[in-house]
Formats: sequence, structure tokens, C-alpha cells
Amino acid sequence: MSDLKLIKKFELADGFWGRYGRLVRDVVLPYQENALNDRIEGAEKSHCIENFRMAAEKLRTGKCEGEFYGMVFQDSDVAKWLEGAAYSLAQHEDADLEQRCDEIIELIGQAQHEDGYLNTYFTVKEPDRRWTNLHEAHELYCAGHMIEAAVAYAECTGKTRLLEIMCGMADHIYRHFIEEGAEGYPGHPEIELALMRLYRATKQERYKELALHFINVRGVNSDYFIQEKQRNNWSVWGGHPTDKEYAQNTAPVRMQRKAVGHAVRAVYLYTGMADAALETGDESLAEACRTLWNNITQCRMYVTGAIGSAYEGEAFTKDYHLPNDTAYAETCAAIGLIFFSNKLLWLDRDGKYADVMERALYNCVLAGMQLDGTRFFYVNPLEALPGISGEAQTHKHALPVRPKWFACACCPPNVARLLSSLSEYAWHIDKDTLYSNLFVGGTLDVSEELGGKVTLETAYPYDGRITYRFTPEGKSMNVQLAIRVPAWSRDIGICVNGAPAQYEVRNGYAYLHGTFPEPTEVTVELDMSVRKVYANSKVAADTGKVAVERGPLLYCAEGVDNDGDVLSLFCKRGGEISVGEYLPDKLCGIRELFAEGYRARSGEALYSYEAPEEEACTITLVPYYTWGNRGLNQMRVWMPER
Amino acid sequence: MSDLKLIKKFELADGFWGRYGRLVRDVVLPYQENALNDRIEGAEKSHCIENFRMAAEKLRTGKCEGEFYGMVFQDSDVAKWLEGAAYSLAQHEDADLEQRCDEIIELIGQAQHEDGYLNTYFTVKEPDRRWTNLHEAHELYCAGHMIEAAVAYAECTGKTRLLEIMCGMADHIYRHFIEEGAEGYPGHPEIELALMRLYRATKQERYKELALHFINVRGVNSDYFIQEKQRNNWSVWGGHPTDKEYAQNTAPVRMQRKAVGHAVRAVYLYTGMADAALETGDESLAEACRTLWNNITQCRMYVTGAIGSAYEGEAFTKDYHLPNDTAYAETCAAIGLIFFSNKLLWLDRDGKYADVMERALYNCVLAGMQLDGTRFFYVNPLEALPGISGEAQTHKHALPVRPKWFACACCPPNVARLLSSLSEYAWHIDKDTLYSNLFVGGTLDVSEELGGKVTLETAYPYDGRITYRFTPEGKSMNVQLAIRVPAWSRDIGICVNGAPAQYEVRNGYAYLHGTFPEPTEVTVELDMSVRKVYANSKVAADTGKVAVERGPLLYCAEGVDNDGDVLSLFCKRGGEISVGEYLPDKLCGIRELFAEGYRARSGEALYSYEAPEEEACTITLVPYYTWGNRGLNQMRVWMPER
Repeated sequence: MSDLKLIKKFELADGFWGRYGRLVRDVVLPYQENALNDRIEGAEKSHCIENFRMAAEKLRTGKCEGEFYGMVFQDSDVAKWLEGAAYSLAQHEDADLEQRCDEIIELIGQAQHEDGYLNTYFTVKEPDRRWTNLHEAHELYCAGHMIEAAVAYAECTGKTRLLEIMCGMADHIYRHFIEEGAEGYPGHPEIELALMRLYRATKQERYKELALHFINVRGVNSDYFIQEKQRNNWSVWGGHPTDKEYAQNTAPVRMQRKAVGHAVRAVYLYTGMADAALETGDESLAEACRTLWNNITQCRMYVTGAIGSAYEGEAFTKDYHLPNDTAYAETCAAIGLIFFSNKLLWLDRDGKYADVMERALYNCVLAGMQLDGTRFFYVNPLEALPGISGEAQTHKHALPVRPKWFACACCPPNVARLLSSLSEYAWHIDKDTLYSNLFVGGTLDVSEELGGKVTLETAYPYDGRITYRFTPEGKSMNVQLAIRVPAWSRDIGICVNGAPAQYEVRNGYAYLHGTFPEPTEVTVELDMSVRKVYANSKVAADTGKVAVERGPLLYCAEGVDNDGDVLSLFCKRGGEISVGEYLPDKLCGIRELFAEGYRARSGEALYSYEAPEEEACTITLVPYYTWGNRGLNQMRVWMPER
Repeated sequence: MSDLKLIKKFELADGFWGRYGRLVRDVVLPYQENALNDRIEGAEKSHCIENFRMAAEKLRTGKCEGEFYGMVFQDSDVAKWLEGAAYSLAQHEDADLEQRCDEIIELIGQAQHEDGYLNTYFTVKEPDRRWTNLHEAHELYCAGHMIEAAVAYAECTGKTRLLEIMCGMADHIYRHFIEEGAEGYPGHPEIELALMRLYRATKQERYKELALHFINVRGVNSDYFIQEKQRNNWSVWGGHPTDKEYAQNTAPVRMQRKAVGHAVRAVYLYTGMADAALETGDESLAEACRTLWNNITQCRMYVTGAIGSAYEGEAFTKDYHLPNDTAYAETCAAIGLIFFSNKLLWLDRDGKYADVMERALYNCVLAGMQLDGTRFFYVNPLEALPGISGEAQTHKHALPVRPKWFACACCPPNVARLLSSLSEYAWHIDKDTLYSNLFVGGTLDVSEELGGKVTLETAYPYDGRITYRFTPEGKSMNVQLAIRVPAWSRDIGICVNGAPAQYEVRNGYAYLHGTFPEPTEVTVELDMSVRKVYANSKVAADTGKVAVERGPLLYCAEGVDNDGDVLSLFCKRGGEISVGEYLPDKLCGIRELFAEGYRARSGEALYSYEAPEEEACTITLVPYYTWGNRGLNQMRVWMPER
């Protein structure tokens, strides 16, 4: 599978994703750059860049002023921002931004030790404790993110300085864990998937070997973190090395059957595993990935594509435990699920992986960011209860409005780097087949691979018509076009230049083989009927309830559209749901849905022996990703059905 | 209002409460005595009695072997057990039990310092830190419980040794806080209500003064616990003195408008406040109590009568936040709500207080104990989900089956002392009026007050017929009989010797004035129709759902009666619910209910675009207090209604 093969070849069109592309470039990346430099008033301090300055000063002079500030993994915020900036530069030249990136990279280089080691927390604060607390200290995690940034920056700008820096760090890690035989594996997986990317970018076998090493030793000595704690006896934040589920070290990875523990750690690990399986053909590893993916998506995933039911440990809990108002549902975890699904899509070429990718993208990742790109949700509940959400002891994490920044700022730059590299998920090219996984409008230049360009035009996700225009360089393009047929689309119609096309649907893709001269227009009509969604009755929180989707979008009811009160609303079983006009000015462009329903009129009493009177009403629904953009407000995804 | 005026005068009849009376006497108290003496295999160690032995030894010899073990308030378990034993002795002579109690009391006396101070934690473990950590160290709390035991033991057995011991401790407290002017108030209220009892038992004004002192200073300096921590800088368990809601010290008590923080602390405080208002006629204090009681019962109480929505802090959270599966709903908190309601019933003579008392008694307190009296729930969830309850990080507290004992064993002896003193709640006598608040079968000897005996015969709570037989000592009894008319009873019929009676219904009581010669039989028929209960739509967890009650009993569905799966069940809106025969051998005697409903047949998928097929079925319901007596099992109180 490719890494960043398409990022420079795809130009976003205007429209839904075009707006997000501009937003990431014009607002999100600059905003986050300001945040990393502590220039945003009233936001949590980051101190990221300053930590690098201090580390560089210390290496230069032997000492530095001030103290390290932030999380032990604060370095990774710079890395993720750089990665997002690289993707942005691949698509739009920006000499100023590139220069600022180069300066940061120089600074990073200055913070690197002669032996290749790079980590500002340890350089500034704990110089004698390198590699002695893999459980908590995130050294391999930070290295992994910076490796991802390095690969991205090299691929997108052609500049290899950061890649050299990070090869130095990777070589250092290799010496420590392979040549010197140090025991252990990372508390927070990430290095595995990063080393696989570094391997593909550099073709150096030792990086693949190192990735496989970390995958293969994980959980074999499941007491490693306990022993490390006994041996070295220091702690960053009082983590519990005895909780083996938390960091997925209960058993060797091929023996793991349930997705457990910290959800981001889990899906980052699984992404690395799937990538390794892809590269090596290791079927036992692939099978473990499928088992874990099935467990997530069939037992532990919200209808938004979010994962991680509990604040405690930011973690998966148990099968079918999917509380709505106390959901953790971390933005980063949904992003990780997209990474994981994308690797399995390469591996098995089954549309179900793209379905989950799309679900998580539209309905959790986008919800993680305010529509103007300046505020973020770390946690994405499916029900917001003003007065309780963000306030009750049990709901401190489940904020009903997005804050500006976080002390632990993992999510905002993660959103930026995903949204600025969508082409990697939207399209796959495998030999002569062009896979259209997500329907992102724009032009893909595949002259090199397939002899021309393909332009995708659509008003998706609000319209189900998708048009592919082929522009061959020569007379025609000889391509197998594989169009994903979403599981939610009951019908699909495909025409070539207006005439019904011949195609074969297999594992969620419509395969259409053709020799396409210019002009060739392939049009697809997806079934955008409104659908009611029912959860398995094992999900206690959703029994008797219904959710509403249209196309890839999950909808929700917000108080602001429904007389300030959505808790008293019922959907009518069998009732109609009509689709509103496209409103370009509402919530940056949406269609509302209008559902037949009832409103119950409870009295003042807490409990009553009379069923509340109900009156017919119309429930206004908006896309879930737009919730919380209009102030403090009730919100509900799952509504009781009568 | 009286304290223990009736306990020796009421003899329980056979029947529902007769069984519980025997159970407390024959099983619960002996079992708990064994637990306190660490004689129960496989149960958490108590070490209660041993702590007293060690303290006594230390006072005698200047040192002791071993270490204090248990919670800082471990002494209170002995106190609550002694109080329960005292009530039991009032009703049934048991020379052996009384001798063992006397021996324990002697031991307690030996653990008392010459200056009156009594607390084994401080005597054994922290001899130099008396009164330096009111926030966490529970000295006043333990004193309060032992004072309650002392009053009970004196009243029930006539023996005043423990009363003398505890007057010594109360005098010590008086010297410290009043005469020497020490600042502060208890982190865990209890001393207030205990001192009011001590005042009534001894007529010593200083005890009332001391109770009022602690009530009046609470929250006036709301930073007291913070200052104490800064001054003395030691901690029992790392409590947070900055959390002022936790211990109800946000503001002076008369200014408090919402029930907040640790639920047991709250209702113990409010009970003391209400008792003080009763004794002093302080209307501002009474009004604060009413405000807090209304907030609890109209915004923060489960339909079981349980309170405290969150494990975090064992606490009240926010209005209308009443999650079912993660409820804390501590048994002790429901008991405290009964104490509080009973005081307000004396104050305002309104049946609504008795309604809540009855709700909490039948539907939370009884659920706190296994039917055989040997296992206990600390936490009483309204939904049990095997695989999640007691297992998920978010549900560690919400066990689906009762354990044998607890490291923090506050609830079991609290149940014992409440159930063995039911007469104090079932009956009130105020001048010539005999209030029948709860319908507990038995004979009340009120010769002294009203010139005869009254016998209550009933098969309540499974039958609504209640018969009062009057047995005057002289020719007749001149009594105003005030019979509570439960809010759930749509109709009430009262006859005297078979003929419809004249009575006036006022504030939830039917007042029937009569001169009753022998034989006089007053019969009451309560409406025992099955009732469906609806929660206010502000309670997000219960929207679209219904609960079922009959008489004072709340019902629930358990898997064992419903093909192992209650999550797929729906109640039919407007459907019939039939009442089963009384089954003397099932769950110690119950009536089942049979509700018309549906069962949804979900497939395997987590989410589906098809509404699940539903088939008509009959849902079997059992009284909530009997749940969890038949192994690991789904349970649900609130069921979706269709």
C-alpha cells in the first residue's frame, strides 16, 4: 500500500471538503501554530516550542533557564502540527509557512543529542532516566509522531532534514532495543506504525525489523511494566502498571481477542499491526487485526464511529457498553480507528472498512472541531445535558461546548493532519484499479499510474450523485474503477456517459472495467433515503430508541431547533422524515431533517402515575457533526420511539 | 417528638415484618456480631472489637500489640450493631446477647481516656492528633453513633453504663468546642442528631446547645477544612478540603438550597437540623429542611427512594441526573432519608414525608440485604447488566450480586438498627392522636398514653386491607386515629365495625375521632391497583420508559423470570398488568406481576437499518427488593414503553 503517494496529486475542489481544506490551511494550522507558541489568550499554555528551545540551549550550553512544561508527550504536538503543515504544503505552496517549519525543524535538530536521542522532557527534566519508564514516559510515542512528521515533510516538500534527524533517533532506538537487547515495549503504541512508514520512505529493513520487534514482544512478558516499575521506581503520573488492559499488554498481540484499555493506544497498536501484516504477509497478525476490528465495530463502537466508552482510562470497557451522555469517544480514538480501518481496507479490500472510516470521519472527527476551526472537543458525547454535562462529577469530561485548547492537546493537531491528508483515505491505487473509497470532490492526477486525471464532482454528503470525469493524457485511460457501495445505500445506479454501465459488486465495491476516452463521465447515484437506525437490544442505553441517518451523516436533535427541549421528544414509529432544502448559510451549509414525532408534556413532579400528555410535533434534526456550534444547548442522538 | 417511646410497647406480628424481625434477631445481628469479631470466613476483615481491645490495653499498659485496622470510622460499626442489639433486646429478652453487649460496653469503657475521650483510631494510631482533622477523621461521627447506641441501650435495657461513658465523651466534646472555643465542625455530620437524642434522654441542655453549635457554625467559615489542612497538614485518605459540596459546608446551613455532596452526610445533617428545629421551634431551620427535602424528592431521588447518583464522592450530583445502571444509591443514604423524613413528619404532619419513608424502606433499604440476611448491597442500581455491572471501569461499584461484607461496613448494621426499630417510624403518638404511618402488623400497647392496646392486622404490602383492633383497658379508648393515605392509593375506604366511618382527610392522613369500646375494628382498604410510573422528561435516563408499582412496592424484571433477557422487553402502552397469587415459597413470599409487552428480536449486528421484529409476550415482574437473590442476572426497573 502507498504512503502519501496521492497527497501531491489530489487537488480538492470547492464544496464540503474544499471548505475544510481551506479551514485547515487558513485557520486550524495557524491557530495551532499560535497555540504551540503560547500566543492564544485564555487558552491552556502549550510550551511545546519553548521546550525544544530549552532542550537545544541545554545541549549547547549544558544548562537552561526555566522548567519543562506540559505533558510528558508534549513534543508530539509539534510533530502532529508539522505533519499537518507538510500535507498542507503539498497542496498549496506557502513559502512563509515552509520557512517557519524549516526553522522549527532546525530547532528540533538542535535538541537532538549526538547519539541521536531526541525528547525534550528527558533532555530538560530527566536526563538520567532515558528508557527507564516505557510505561508512562512516552519516549517511543513522541519518536513515532516525529517520525511520521519527518516522512510527511520529506514526501511533501522534498526536504529531508527532519527525516535525517529522525533516522538518527530511529537508529538510536534500534541500537538500544535490538543491538543492546534492552527489554520492553512502549506504554503508548505509535512507534510501530511510524517505523513502518519510515521503512517505506527509506527502504531500510532495520526500521521494519524494529517495528516488528515492538509488535512481537508486546505482552509476551506481560509483567514488563510491573518489573520496570519495581526496578526503576519512578513515576510520571502514578500510572498503574498492573492494569495490563490499559496498554494492551495482557497477552501477545496475536492472542488478543477483545479491544481493551486506552482506546487511542489500542487503535494505534492495531494500525501498526495491520501495516506490518500488509508488508510481511503475516496471516496470524492479519487475523488478529480482523478479530479486534470486528470486536470494536460489532460490540464497542458508537453509531458516530467513536470508540472508548469510559473516561476512566479513556478506555474501551465491555461489549455493548455504550453510554451516551458519559461517553468518552475521544476524537483521537476515532482518528485511530480510521487509520486502522484504512490499513485493513488495503489488506482485505472490503467496503465495510471504508464504511467505518466514513462513519468515524463525518460523525466523530468533524464533530471534534468547531465549524470555524478554532475550538475542539476531546470528548464527543451522544447526548448533552446542560446543567449535568461538564458539571456533574460523572460528567466533568463530557463538555457541552468546545474549549479553546487542552492541557493535553492531542486531538486538535490530529484532526488537522487527518483532514489535510484525506486523499490517502479517499483513494487507493492498486495496479490498474482506482479505488474510490470516500467521495471527496477534486481532481486526482494519476498520469503516472493510470495515464490521466480523474475528477470527482459531487455535492456529497448532502447529495448522492457522484460524477467521475476522466481526462486521459493519451487517447484513453485503461482503468478498473472500483466505487465503494456504502452499506447504507439500498440501491446504486452507475452510468457511463448516461448509459447504464456494466459492473460487478463485490465486497462493497462496484467494479467497473473500462477504457475511458475523453470525455468519459461515470455517474453514480447513491440512495440518500433517510434511514432510521436501531441498536442491538444488548445496548442498554439505546433500547426503545432510534437514531436517524442520511447518507454518511448521522443526525441529532438540538434544543436550539426544538423549543429548547429535546428530552421530551419521541420519534413516531413508522413516521415520515422529510429532507430540507440545502441551506448554504446554516451551520456552514447543511440540510435539516424534519421527523414526525411527539412531545411529552411532563408536569413538575419527578414521578407521576399518569402517562404524560403527548402532542404531535415536528422534530428538527441537524447533522451531528454540527452540534454544539450554537451555544449551550441540549443535544440527543438516540431518541425514544413510540 | 418521641425517642424510642414505642420500641418496648410494640410487638411485631407474624407476616412480612415479622419475618424481618426474626431475621434481624436470629441471623443479621448474630452474623454481624461474627463479622465484627472476624469470625466469617472469606469476608472482609472488620477488626472492630479488636481495635477496642488494643485501645484498652494501651490505656492500661501504655502500649499495645499490633496495629489499628480498618476505616478511620471503624468504631461506628460496633456502635450501630449495639444499637440494633438494644432494639432487639427491647422486644425479646436474650440474656446471653445482653451479657455479650454488656461485655462489649465494658470494653468500650476501658478504651475511654480519663478526660472522656473515646476513639480507638486516635488512641491506638494517632494519639497526638485528636481534633486536628475534622474533615476526614470522623471522631465526631464515631462519637455520634456511640451516643445513639448509648441512648438506645439505656432506653431498651435500663442499663446506663454506656450512657455514662458517652456523656463523658459528649462532655469532653463540649469542653473542647464550647468552653475552650475550638473552631470547626464535623466532616461527616451525625453528632448533631445524636446529641439531640442524648439531650432528650438526659434532659441536659448542654447537649442540645452543642448540637445547635455544630449546626450553626457549619459553613459559616466555609474554608475551615482548608485552613485545618494548612495548619495541621495530615491526611487520612487524601480527601479534598476544597470540595465544599462534599461535606455540605458551602454556606451556613440555613442558606443551603440544594442537596449536594456525599449523600449520607447530607441526610444525617438534615436529620439533625430537622430535629433541632422540632425542639427549638426555629422556623428558619425548619424552612431550610423543607427546601432541601423538596430538592431531594422532586429532583434528586430515584423511584426506589434511593439517593446519590454518583460513585464519585458517593454523592448527589445535579437535578434530574438519575442514571440507572451506574447509580450509587447507597443503602445508608436511603436510611438517612428515612430519618430525615421521619423528623419532618413530626414537624409538619404531612403524609408526603411518610410516603417517601415507605418508598425508601421497601424499595431501597430492603434491597440492601439479601433475603436470608447474610449478604448486603452498599450500592443499589436500578439496572443490572451482567458483564458490565461490577466489571466495567465505570461500574466497579454497581455489583450485580451482594457480597458478604465490606471493608467499609456502614450499611449492614444500619439496616439492622433500622429494621429493629420500625415502631418509631410506623407509629407516632401526639397527645390523643395515634398516627399510623406505616402499616406494620403487630400490637401496640398504649395503655399509658391512650388507655389500651391497638392491634394492626394486615397482609400488607401484598394486600391493601388493614384492620385496627382496639382493646381498651377500661370501657373504651378515646383516640383520634390518623391513618396515612398513601399518595399511590386512588381510593380509600374506612369502616368502623363494618359500617362506613366518618373521617376527614387532611395532608395525607385520614383523621377518625372515636371513642372505641371493645370490640372495635377499624378497617381500611387501600387501592392496590397496579400503577405505571413515569419519570419527568428531564430525567434523560428514563425518557420513553415506564416503571411498575403495586401498593408500596416497586417492581422490576429479572432475567431469570424472562428467558434470561430483559433488555429486549417493552411494556405495552395501555397494556394490562395482572397480579399473581401470593406465592409463600417464592422469594420469601411475593406476588408476581404479569405485564403485556413485546420482545424485540435484534439480530447479531450492533446497528441495523431495520426495526427489530417484535413479538407479543408477557413480562414477569418481581418486587425490586427481591432482586439479585437468584444469582447473576439481568435486572431492569425502567423499561421502554411502546
